[in-house]
Amino acid sequence: MSQTDVKILGISGSLRAKSYNTAALRALHELLPPGVSLTEADISEIPLYNDDVREQGWPAAVERFRKQIEQADALIFSTPEYNYSVPGVLKNAIDWASRPPQQPFAGKPAAIMGASPGVIGTARAQYHLRQIGVFLDLQFINKPEVMIGTAADRFNADGKLTHEPTREFLKTMVAALADRVRFLRDRK
Amino acid sequence: MSQTDVKILGISGSLRAKSYNTAALRALHELLPPGVSLTEADISEIPLYNDDVREQGWPAAVERFRKQIEQADALIFSTPEYNYSVPGVLKNAIDWASRPPQQPFAGKPAAIMGASPGVIGTARAQYHLRQIGVFLDLQFINKPEVMIGTAADRFNADGKLTHEPTREFLKTMVAALADRVRFLRDRK
Amino acid sequence: MSQTDVKILGISGSLRAKSYNTAALRALHELLPPGVSLTEADISEIPLYNDDVREQGWPAAVERFRKQIEQADALIFSTPEYNYSVPGVLKNAIDWASRPPQQPFAGKPAAIMGASPGVIGTARAQYHLRQIGVFLDLQFINKPEVMIGTAADRFNADGKLTHEPTREFLKTMVAALADRVRFLRDRK
Amino acid sequence: MSQTDVKILGISGSLRAKSYNTAALRALHELLPPGVSLTEADISEIPLYNDDVREQGWPAAVERFRKQIEQADALIFSTPEYNYSVPGVLKNAIDWASRPPQQPFAGKPAAIMGASPGVIGTARAQYHLRQIGVFLDLQFINKPEVMIGTAADRFNADGKLTHEPTREFLKTMVAALADRVRFLRDRK
Repeated sequence: MSQTDVKILGISGSLRAKSYNTAALRALHELLPPGVSLTEADISEIPLYNDDVREQGWPAAVERFRKQIEQADALIFSTPEYNYSVPGVLKNAIDWASRPPQQPFAGKPAAIMGASPGVIGTARAQYHLRQIGVFLDLQFINKPEVMIGTAADRFNADGKLTHEPTREFLKTMVAALADRVRFLRDRK
Repeated sequence: MSQTDVKILGISGSLRAKSYNTAALRALHELLPPGVSLTEADISEIPLYNDDVREQGWPAAVERFRKQIEQADALIFSTPEYNYSVPGVLKNAIDWASRPPQQPFAGKPAAIMGASPGVIGTARAQYHLRQIGVFLDLQFINKPEVMIGTAADRFNADGKLTHEPTREFLKTMVAALADRVRFLRDRK
Repeated sequence: MSQTDVKILGISGSLRAKSYNTAALRALHELLPPGVSLTEADISEIPLYNDDVREQGWPAAVERFRKQIEQADALIFSTPEYNYSVPGVLKNAIDWASRPPQQPFAGKPAAIMGASPGVIGTARAQYHLRQIGVFLDLQFINKPEVMIGTAADRFNADGKLTHEPTREFLKTMVAALADRVRFLRDRK
Repeated sequence: MSQTDVKILGISGSLRAKSYNTAALRALHELLPPGVSLTEADISEIPLYNDDVREQGWPAAVERFRKQIEQADALIFSTPEYNYSVPGVLKNAIDWASRPPQQPFAGKPAAIMGASPGVIGTARAQYHLRQIGVFLDLQFINKPEVMIGTAADRFNADGKLTHEPTREFLKTMVAALADRVRFLRDRK
């Protein structure tokens, strides 16, 4: 009997219903190794970051998001690239969640994936996210780097990831992340 | 009699009332060269970017922001640094405004300034913003780079920029930007 | 009768004889618009940068390179990507050339191209080079961004660029750079 | 009786004799925790990278450097910032050492420090080096980030690091790196 020992929180940087990045995250559910679970965060209700608002207390959607991060053993960011960087929507969620007193990202193993219609496949956004991770003290795995280019050819009309090599690649990524969590676990 | 020939749109990346970045932008009003005007954008009402929403039509706050960009001869971004990058709030406003059919940033001369409590003064955010500007086809001036560190010492309790060398520096920046606009103008 | 009014200096970031980047630079000779000339820099004899050496006087290869930059109206960097950044060899040449008393790069219009065997085609190196350009005060054109992926399919065994769409793209780039030079010229 | 179990290789990115970065690296010898040793790499004899040369066999200085990396348990890069990035000299050494068949950096814990005369203290170079580290699969610690600004005030005329808070900070960094090595050790 298998028990869940690695809880992953998946965070999509796109809010549109047919987002390739959300679809890619959803595809992970069928690709998880034994003992690994995946929850999808919902950042669509998080307001624009404003420190004056924060001082009145966490908005409910932020509090939920922070709690999900805290309870996760690892994070997967599935990020589109907008204007050669991370979407404002994703960055805004990070800006809220990262505020004191506790910074819930600190020390968490994490991985990045991204899907785009073009060939470069979100590379530019991913390196910005890695720099953000230095401040957050995220423990990003270096490899594999998942950049899903020409996304329109890899998902079907229902948003299902049908491209087999990409499915295998995602499997490798989530396995690498789970391994990392287990590798580091006893030491904490 | 002086007439305005260079209209600058200032965009602060922070929404809190006592933001140093908004205060620094406001300080520019007293530092403008002859013939230069400054309007401050309001990005606080722009919703989270969602392409499904966009397909229903521009939200009013986005439409206003886009129009302001179109009508400006140049842009000044006053950006805090959150988590080693551009604030999500600012990036979100850019993500909305940059969408087709017209991309209003294209070809506009622009400058970056930033204020922070620490010593590095938003450098990391500024280089991310410059990379974003490559996609947007902004014409950022290279110099001066305005990074106002130890901001608490340079503004008074009312948010007025009192540090004389910083005021002079801002004056230099806005003059360089206005020069750029005029230099390029006849050629367009 | 056409006269040369735009002198471009091309700088390849690779030293190996069969470099795709050097080959791409060489291909430009057949793609120049009227009035534009191209000289190729040779950075292979530039020693490792050492400020103690510089204080003894410029090494001959550095002096030659600096003079070529000074005399050029514009620069084209053709850069491979090594380890997700600009090659050390190219950066070393820049480090030497940028030293006081005169900084020969300042204000020069410039463009970047890059070729690589993989699909991303030197994007990561190019954005690092653009950040370097902020300090150097290079006037990089934003577009087109020339990233020649899957280079092995685009050059023949003799290193000739045979891929017609890529040739057209290079033509567009060099024309855009020449236009930029002429656009800015009278104003200086 | 204490035995060395953590061997660190220090790599300075500057070749000049009175380099602050080399001096900062040298200062570490007095700041090592028990069981930690430090060797300084010498990259001054490494030629410009040229793959045609590599195919003839590793130059002696490269082979020595590669062996030092292989034998180290962890790496410390002490890097100046030239032109808003990593020095060409340092990048060139990395470009050589990273070449197949074995890539000696893979999986090594590493830290970055940097010293500069100005206030920003090599931040821009450090984030470029971190991106390079993604490809190399270096395991950079996120914190502390050591950026020694206003270096002229912190070293005496003999190049000795005399600024006590900076010495304490370096001590913290090298201890964090050694901890990381030991933390990861048994798991490999």
